[in-house]
Amino acid sequence: MSQPLRLGIAGLGTVGIGVVRIIRQHAAMLKARTGREIVISAVCARDPDKDRGVSLSSYAWETDATALATRDDVDVFVELIGGHEGIAKDAVEAALAAGKDVVTANKALLAIHGQALAEAAEAAGRALRYEAAVAGGIPVIKALTEGLAGNDITRVVGVMNGSCNYILTRMESAGLSYEEVFAEADGLGYLEADPQLDVGGIDAAHKLAILSSIAFGTRVDFDGIALEGIDRVSIEDIHAAADMDYKIKLLGVAQKTGRGLEQRMQPCLVPDTSPLGQLDGGTNMVLLEGDAVGQIVLRGPGAGEGPTASAVLADICDIARGLRGPVFGVPADTLTASVPASAQLPAPYYLRMSLEDKPGALARIAKVLGEAGVSIDRMRQYGHEDTSAPVLIVTHKTTPAALNEALGAMEGTGVLSGTPVALRIEDV
Amino acid sequence: MSQPLRLGIAGLGTVGIGVVRIIRQHAAMLKARTGREIVISAVCARDPDKDRGVSLSSYAWETDATALATRDDVDVFVELIGGHEGIAKDAVEAALAAGKDVVTANKALLAIHGQALAEAAEAAGRALRYEAAVAGGIPVIKALTEGLAGNDITRVVGVMNGSCNYILTRMESAGLSYEEVFAEADGLGYLEADPQLDVGGIDAAHKLAILSSIAFGTRVDFDGIALEGIDRVSIEDIHAAADMDYKIKLLGVAQKTGRGLEQRMQPCLVPDTSPLGQLDGGTNMVLLEGDAVGQIVLRGPGAGEGPTASAVLADICDIARGLRGPVFGVPADTLTASVPASAQLPAPYYLRMSLEDKPGALARIAKVLGEAGVSIDRMRQYGHEDTSAPVLIVTHKTTPAALNEALGAMEGTGVLSGTPVALRIEDV
Ligand SMILES: NC(=O)c1ccc[n+]([C@@H]2O[C@H](COP(=O)([O-])OP(=O)(O)OC[C@H]3O[C@@H](n4cnc5c(N)ncnc54)[C@H](OP(=O)(O)O)[C@@H]3O)[C@@H](O)[C@H]2O)c1
Ligand SMILES: NC(=O)c1ccc[n+]([C@@H]2O[C@H](COP(=O)([O-])OP(=O)(O)OC[C@H]3O[C@@H](n4cnc5c(N)ncnc54)[C@H](OP(=O)(O)O)[C@@H]3O)[C@@H](O)[C@H]2O)c1
Repeated sequence: MSQPLRLGIAGLGTVGIGVVRIIRQHAAMLKARTGREIVISAVCARDPDKDRGVSLSSYAWETDATALATRDDVDVFVELIGGHEGIAKDAVEAALAAGKDVVTANKALLAIHGQALAEAAEAAGRALRYEAAVAGGIPVIKALTEGLAGNDITRVVGVMNGSCNYILTRMESAGLSYEEVFAEADGLGYLEADPQLDVGGIDAAHKLAILSSIAFGTRVDFDGIALEGIDRVSIEDIHAAADMDYKIKLLGVAQKTGRGLEQRMQPCLVPDTSPLGQLDGGTNMVLLEGDAVGQIVLRGPGAGEGPTASAVLADICDIARGLRGPVFGVPADTLTASVPASAQLPAPYYLRMSLEDKPGALARIAKVLGEAGVSIDRMRQYGHEDTSAPVLIVTHKTTPAALNEALGAMEGTGVLSGTPVALRIEDV
Repeated sequence: MSQPLRLGIAGLGTVGIGVVRIIRQHAAMLKARTGREIVISAVCARDPDKDRGVSLSSYAWETDATALATRDDVDVFVELIGGHEGIAKDAVEAALAAGKDVVTANKALLAIHGQALAEAAEAAGRALRYEAAVAGGIPVIKALTEGLAGNDITRVVGVMNGSCNYILTRMESAGLSYEEVFAEADGLGYLEADPQLDVGGIDAAHKLAILSSIAFGTRVDFDGIALEGIDRVSIEDIHAAADMDYKIKLLGVAQKTGRGLEQRMQPCLVPDTSPLGQLDGGTNMVLLEGDAVGQIVLRGPGAGEGPTASAVLADICDIARGLRGPVFGVPADTLTASVPASAQLPAPYYLRMSLEDKPGALARIAKVLGEAGVSIDRMRQYGHEDTSAPVLIVTHKTTPAALNEALGAMEGTGVLSGTPVALRIEDV
């Protein structure tokens, strides 16, 4: 193939400009690697007059992304605007309808409308690729779809929101409260305009929904994710977890269980010596587990101009090379509706509570746990603070149901001061 | 495409049987993922009567791998015999000449004859794929060739021989000598029939040569690798490095320098808190660095039936999907001869020496280092053992030339007891 591959790039923000830069700087390299020239025909953003630090004068300018998406001189529509409704969705749909290949970094779009878009792309015989949508510069979509194609995937685990991981590790290193570090991160521009996308776990859950679909051959099911953000993680828990040799991470987990597909995004404890436990700052990490390969760990930058543009380019290069596999690894019309797991698999839990200064208080708690069938692996009682004493418990594997029963019964003991904190410990 | 993809598998040892198992067990899954049935037409090994734990009766049996490679009912020749001369090479050449695609796990073959084989494959318009040849189950060839296709690769670093990493970490955890752990590993069957392939760094260097070619667009140049095994790593150095917060790893490094391509495989120190520093046992790890993405770290099992077969299947699935890119990422006839770097880039070094119990001995050493332009970052002198005192020095960045000058001059000081050990500290 010697025809140039012609791109239309919609969105010239962090990622879009990163893509333009690479294509300008590495034209010869890209041609050598793909066998085709990769050129930009037209671009589009809101403000035609903004100085974007790179010359755009050789590209046609469109004010409307949908018009860009359907131009005759565009083979691949590159959607880097964002958002799961509105112009991004309209333009991607228009591009596919017009027989264009599509590359996007938009996890929200894929997580919410992935099934319909995949069906549209496959019906049109076009590619819809989104390497940049999950874990930024880490080629995780490729690893899962292609690199581990010979595996029955058993579990996917990831830290996929750098801002949350930054906040959690910064809380620990600086001994600051969640609120303090949140304000700091917000001030530094580390958080989305709507910070709930980050700290509420929504952004990471979008990514998990996508990985889960590929891993298990199920339709993307964002709503099926049990979702909890990091806002209730306290500096006390971070310190207490560290005392017990754990770190707290916002962990996405998807796994097949006998009772359906378990998908959750929640703060979990992981051993501090594990690769996930040692992941500091804004870096992302994804663990992929398969029946043949065992466990693969991928680590790298989850966001930023260069890393995200790198992933967009991987997709563009694949299309230039003629790669046009099914969007989620198998044909979209064969993806099955996921059956959400009726209950989470058993796991050890971390419990932190304050006991009132009453005789036999700890024995009461131990008894209640035992009665619910929750056995204690490790327990640590600290010196009294005023009238109450902090207690940490690490349980053996237990079902969330048994744990909840125990937590309920604890309330009735009358020895608790405040509400206990319970966090799942993930085996990674 | 609905024609089955028909395989001929030569070699039914650890990897070959692993591949057969996956294809038998996951036929439906593979078909769903690739759109084609993947079937085995014929197999071949030395001993037709060996019980291999899996039924082979439905496949034709060939006694000669070359005959297998050229059968009419074989689309893809899967070479899992091993060795860079003899039957593996002959059969791969025959397969390509007969217009077959080839998948192999044979790093020796690729590292020594990669250029000629790649030219043959590309001239024939066939695929020659080898994901399993480097870092076992980690899809690193795919990550580098496709996932990071938009990057100018700046450095590749890896721990790619699990046996060496096992030996080094076991020495540290058990406090045993190299000889003791070597004997143990050999007894457990962890080492190749010729253990020099492992502990001499040859196997890992084969892998580095392959990665280096892809990363830098150069012809595979195994002979251009500065190669040193782990046999001179002593338990004293492992303990001393740990005292200075480092681990010793057999590290492969390939990087572009202003003076050419630097390729080396040697025991190096890495910070004990880095991902490489925390890599215990037989696991492999590869760091890929690119101008856009920054650093990606891939970790996983480097050998064994399941992981290696997983990688072989990734290649088979890619071929089933029609992927047939150039063997080393760009057309083989455009790969340039690598210009070996005239000198290694400066780095900090670790030095361990014994000083005789003479007044001013340490000052003499410090003076000699200073005169050679080697400045000291950290120095630690231990209590005297009999008549000599162990000294550890971590230098600031220095050229190997300056270091060698200093080491030479040290000999002349008359205060050394024995020969100093010098190990490079890699910034990872
Ligand atoms: N930033 C990252 O690190 C990262 C990482 C992974 C994935 N992503 C995803 O990549 C996408 C882009 O992110 P970003 O960080 O590059 O966003 P950004 O910096 O906010 O850029 C968005 C771009 O879209 C343009 N735009 C907005 N509304 C438009 C409209 N109606 N028509 C045409 N153009 C419009 C904006 O134009 P103006 O410049 O004129 O305002 C801007 O150029 C998102 O889906 C995001 O989730 C980003
Ligand atoms: N094992 C790993 O974990 C691993 C990891 C990465 C890459 N690799 C590579 O994978 C390849 C295979 O390794 P392996 O561990 O599977 O080796 P293996 O267990 O020793 O098996 C080699 C197979 O080749 C057969 N064979 C030997 N000479 C032959 C000949 N002249 N004609 C036909 N068949 C012949 C043997 O037949 P018999 O069984 O009848 O003796 C045996 O089945 C090697 O290139 C190796 O470097 C291995």
